[in-house]
Order: sequence, then structure tokens, then C-alpha cells
Amino acid sequence: MERNITLAHGSGGRLTAELVQEVFVKAFDDDAGRRLEDSAVLPPGSGEVALTTDGFVVKPRVFPGGDIGKLAVCGTVNDLAVAGAEPVALTVACIIEEGLAVSELRAVARSMAATARQAGVRIVAGDTKVVERGSGDGLYLATSGYGLLPPGRRLGAARLTVGDVILVSGDIGRHEAAILLARGELHFEAALESDCGLLLETCRGVLAAGGDGVRALRDCTRGGLATVLCEYAAASGLGLALQEAAIPVRPAVAAVCELLGLDPLYLACEGRLVAVVSEDVAERVEACLQTSESSAARIGQVVAEPAGRVVLETGIGGRRVLDLLAGGQLPRIC
Amino acid sequence: MERNITLAHGSGGRLTAELVQEVFVKAFDDDAGRRLEDSAVLPPGSGEVALTTDGFVVKPRVFPGGDIGKLAVCGTVNDLAVAGAEPVALTVACIIEEGLAVSELRAVARSMAATARQAGVRIVAGDTKVVERGSGDGLYLATSGYGLLPPGRRLGAARLTVGDVILVSGDIGRHEAAILLARGELHFEAALESDCGLLLETCRGVLAAGGDGVRALRDCTRGGLATVLCEYAAASGLGLALQEAAIPVRPAVAAVCELLGLDPLYLACEGRLVAVVSEDVAERVEACLQTSESSAARIGQVVAEPAGRVVLETGIGGRRVLDLLAGGQLPRIC
Repeated sequence: MERNITLAHGSGGRLTAELVQEVFVKAFDDDAGRRLEDSAVLPPGSGEVALTTDGFVVKPRVFPGGDIGKLAVCGTVNDLAVAGAEPVALTVACIIEEGLAVSELRAVARSMAATARQAGVRIVAGDTKVVERGSGDGLYLATSGYGLLPPGRRLGAARLTVGDVILVSGDIGRHEAAILLARGELHFEAALESDCGLLLETCRGVLAAGGDGVRALRDCTRGGLATVLCEYAAASGLGLALQEAAIPVRPAVAAVCELLGLDPLYLACEGRLVAVVSEDVAERVEACLQTSESSAARIGQVVAEPAGRVVLETGIGGRRVLDLLAGGQLPRIC
Repeated sequence: MERNITLAHGSGGRLTAELVQEVFVKAFDDDAGRRLEDSAVLPPGSGEVALTTDGFVVKPRVFPGGDIGKLAVCGTVNDLAVAGAEPVALTVACIIEEGLAVSELRAVARSMAATARQAGVRIVAGDTKVVERGSGDGLYLATSGYGLLPPGRRLGAARLTVGDVILVSGDIGRHEAAILLARGELHFEAALESDCGLLLETCRGVLAAGGDGVRALRDCTRGGLATVLCEYAAASGLGLALQEAAIPVRPAVAAVCELLGLDPLYLACEGRLVAVVSEDVAERVEACLQTSESSAARIGQVVAEPAGRVVLETGIGGRRVLDLLAGGQLPRIC
């Protein structure tokens, strides 16, 4: 018989304990978590500490290429990886709406566990809260990540320098386009899988290939490639010049955008990063990116003017200034 | 004019950036957070690492003695403190329902910041997601904590020994009783403030006074004092004998329980801990607890039999076995 989450599962009593054992302890299979104390205890780490957190409210929770659990682990691991950190451990807080099928929760926990295993990272602590029917939408997750930075590694917009090269690790916008199609509100069919995935190996490869020439890495999530670049331009005070023709966009994504009047530059990815690297290492880094994703490409460079702006050079020789969108193109894509 | 949260505030575009600046960066005032990179970077720490996370869905969000922001910071700091760790940094993920007043969000952020300052802990990273009206209930928070454990410190149920003394740091059940009254569904008035508060100084005092004689500390949150003790009994395989008359319960809490048929032993506290300490340090630890809260008391001891059970010796000479409740007494108390 299908069992569903009740308010009693969030009470802290026997049903909470059983749910935690049956679903989370079993899936995450971690000694620190199994102790069920107030905090998980991990061995001392050396290096600077990286901390990150993200909430996940994606709708639908399962989509071609992923689900909310995989998305949460990828998102958190990627945030550590693009900071140049080695991810060590994650924690997860679940906010569950009364009525969710226990089997779905179990599937999400397994998906989280599988993705964490793939990244070589532990899920060491968790929490479960249940809200009344109508006060949630099935399941929300909030994951946090703890990682360690090798000595002296510092990435960020502040390190951008005129002449640096801008690279993207693969075709853009596929996550948001896939979510859009998965909602089934469009009378439009396309075989489109989210790019939801881990960027840890990619980051390690880029840092190994580019060394100190790697200025900044950022995953292009909410707001897409354009938002990352606008934030870089604003934070560095430099200009970013992009060649539109060089930016990889799959035909199906371009078609969805065409139909709906969306701009692929602003569509969220969940497994793509932008790397800004010095000119002398650009070729090596580009080659490294292309070994894991053949669509990886060099898309532009850092320039002095216009200061603080992103300028797109269009195929037909025009120039368009990119800016942050006021709002987004689609709610609840992650 | 009162401004409200819209879906665009969760889009990752300009409105998200403005909200984060205006509400969170301003309130939390932390260099690591201000950089707005994917991860916050902190200096290396020495000692074992403690990690914890909790979701907060309390209803109402403001109650006598606290609010959801204070509750979240206290809960996370306390989880680190009872593990014997020194809290270093917190992260916070907000899941906001469309329509929430920006002024309320600002008040919550300020409350978090003030409580974190009081604890001497930084809020270094955050995330904001917005869900459609009807898919949430105003505001949910998920906080995570990172702390450091002094070398060799290990607390936990596994260290319980026959003859140990059980202490509680103050009167119990006040948080859940205050939430119950704050919902206004009872035709019952009582001046009752939640015990929501920081336990960090209390833990430091207990550990200084009791040293290695401190076996285990745990804050009594969801499920109350009884649930903590049942978990201790099960995890240690020892018995816990409690003297009912020694357990501090305020008359107003007792009256609420009497009226509604609730058991104060199972009511959540948010600023109370149970300490299990060796007999030889019990007096010193009790004296230390009483300096911060005069109602702190010695309430029982660890015994060999009945193994794995908690037995309450009632005022009239009876004995009652305490067990985990199947569900809770009240949903959404934290």
C-alpha cells in the first residue's frame, strides 16, 4: 500500500525517527549521520574553508535529465567546485508537504546519495519538517556544502584582467528549456534533457590545466550565462565582449526560445560553467573543457571599455549591451 | 507604500540582486557574504569539524519571546554548542511565498543578525527562492552551522555510565506552550514567553565546570525532554530514572497542559538542554546551570535497569515508563 507523509512524521516522535531511518540514514549510509546527534563531527581539515547553501523548489520535481535530489547535490557541489574548493560534506533540510508519497521521498534520497557518491562527497546531517497540505508543494530541499580550499587559491571577479579569455563549458540553457517542456503547458515536443550535472571534475581539470591563469569560475544557474557575465562586469569594473556566433546553443533550445520569445543567454543551466582565464593558458583550458563536453567554446574576452558592461557582438555585425533582467524568464526552475 | 515579494524576486535577475543587497547583505554585514560568490571563504580552522542543519516552519512566525529568525539562529547555534563545538559560521536558505511583505523579511533578517551577533557567529552565505502564492506559507528558513571542536572532546549517548546524574537547564515546555497560545485558537490567556534562546554560554559553562565528566548534552527541541531521554536510553542501552517532582514546569505551562490533555515532558523547548554528567561533577555543573537560570535542576540518574528505558517516578510513588510519542502534540512548532 502506498504510504504518505503525515504531520506526525514531522513531530520529532517515533514516526519521525522511523522515517529518518528508513529513508535518509539508509540512503546516505554515513557514519556521522547515523549517530543522529545534533551535529555531525568530521575530522579536522587543512586549508581555507568554503561554505555554501541553496534552496531547491524546482517544478516538476522529476524532469528529463534529473530530479530535485540530483539538482540539489549538483548545485551545492558545483558551488564549492567553482570556488576552487574540494567538496567534503553536505547537509540537507527537507520541507515536506503533508501527503507526499514516502516512495517519492525515498527516490529523492537515493538520487541525492547516488550523486553525492559520484562526487565523492558525504551527506552527513539532515533535518525533516512537515507542513500541512496546502502550505507547501510536495517537497522543498535546502542543501549546504562544506569544502576545503588549497592554500593560496583565490578565484573571483576581482582577478579579471584586460585580455583574459572567456570560455563556456558546453551548450547553454538546456536546463531551463527542459523544465519548461517538462511542465507540459506547451503544445511543443522536443527531445531535450537538462544539463543538470556535476562540474567537479571539470573544475579540477581547468585548475590543473590553467593553474594561476584561471581568474574566475562560475556555474551559470538562475539567470543563465548573461547574468554571470553581467555580475562579473559589474564586480570587476571591466568590459566583457562576447561573440554571439561562438556561444553554443542546441537547435532545440534555440527553437523553444524562438517560439516563446525567450533569450537563451538568460536561461538557467545546471551543469555549465563560465571560466575566465589568462590568454596564455586559454588554449590548454579550452582543450581540457572540450575533452569532457565537445560543445565547450571560447566565447569572448575581457576588455577595458565599456567599463562594467557586457557587449554582445551579433552575427550580423551589430552590438547589443546585455543587462540583468528585472525578473526571470520562468519561476521555480531550480 | 508596502512592498511585497513577487516571483521576479526569486528569478536571479536584478530584483533578486536588489533584495539580497537591501535585506540580507545589509543585515548580516559580513565580508564573506558581501562578495556574493558561489561559496563563502573562511580562514582555516583547527580541530574537528561540526556540521548541522535545520529547517524552520514555525507558525506563527512571530511569537512572545522570539520569531522564526531568532529561532533558526538559536536552533543552529545550539546544535553546535551541545555537540561541544564552538560555532563559527551559519548559512541560511529562505523559501519565500509570493506576497510576503518585504518589511517582514527585513525584520526576520535583522532578528537573525542580532541573534548571530549575540552568539559571536557570522552569517556568511545565503540563498533566496520564491514560490507562487499558495505553494508556501509566508516564509520557511533552513539554516546550517559550521563549528570547531576542541581536540579530544567527544560528547554523546555512548558515554553514559551508570551513576551519572541528569540535569535540565531550566523549566521545560515553554516554547511549545507559547506557540500554542500565540495561535489564538484557544480561549485561554496566559503570560507565557517562549524559552527560545542561545545555549552557547550555558554549554561553555557546563564544559568548564564539568570537564571530562560531561558525558552528553542535548537541547530539548521537538519532542521535548522525554524524547531526548528516550533517545539516550535507546542509544546507550542503559536505564534513565527520573523524579517527576524535580522536573521544573512553570504553573502556566502546567495549566495549559492540564486543560488540553498535553504532557509537558513532550513539549518542545528552544532554549533548554539536558546534561548527563558524572556524579563527581554534578554539584559543580548544577551550580553553574543555576547561575544562568534559577529553575535549572537535577532531575534523575542513569541506572542499569530497565535497560534502554526511561522510567518516571511520580510524586505519589508510582512508576511510569516514558516512550517516544507516535506523532507530536502540535505541528509546526519550530
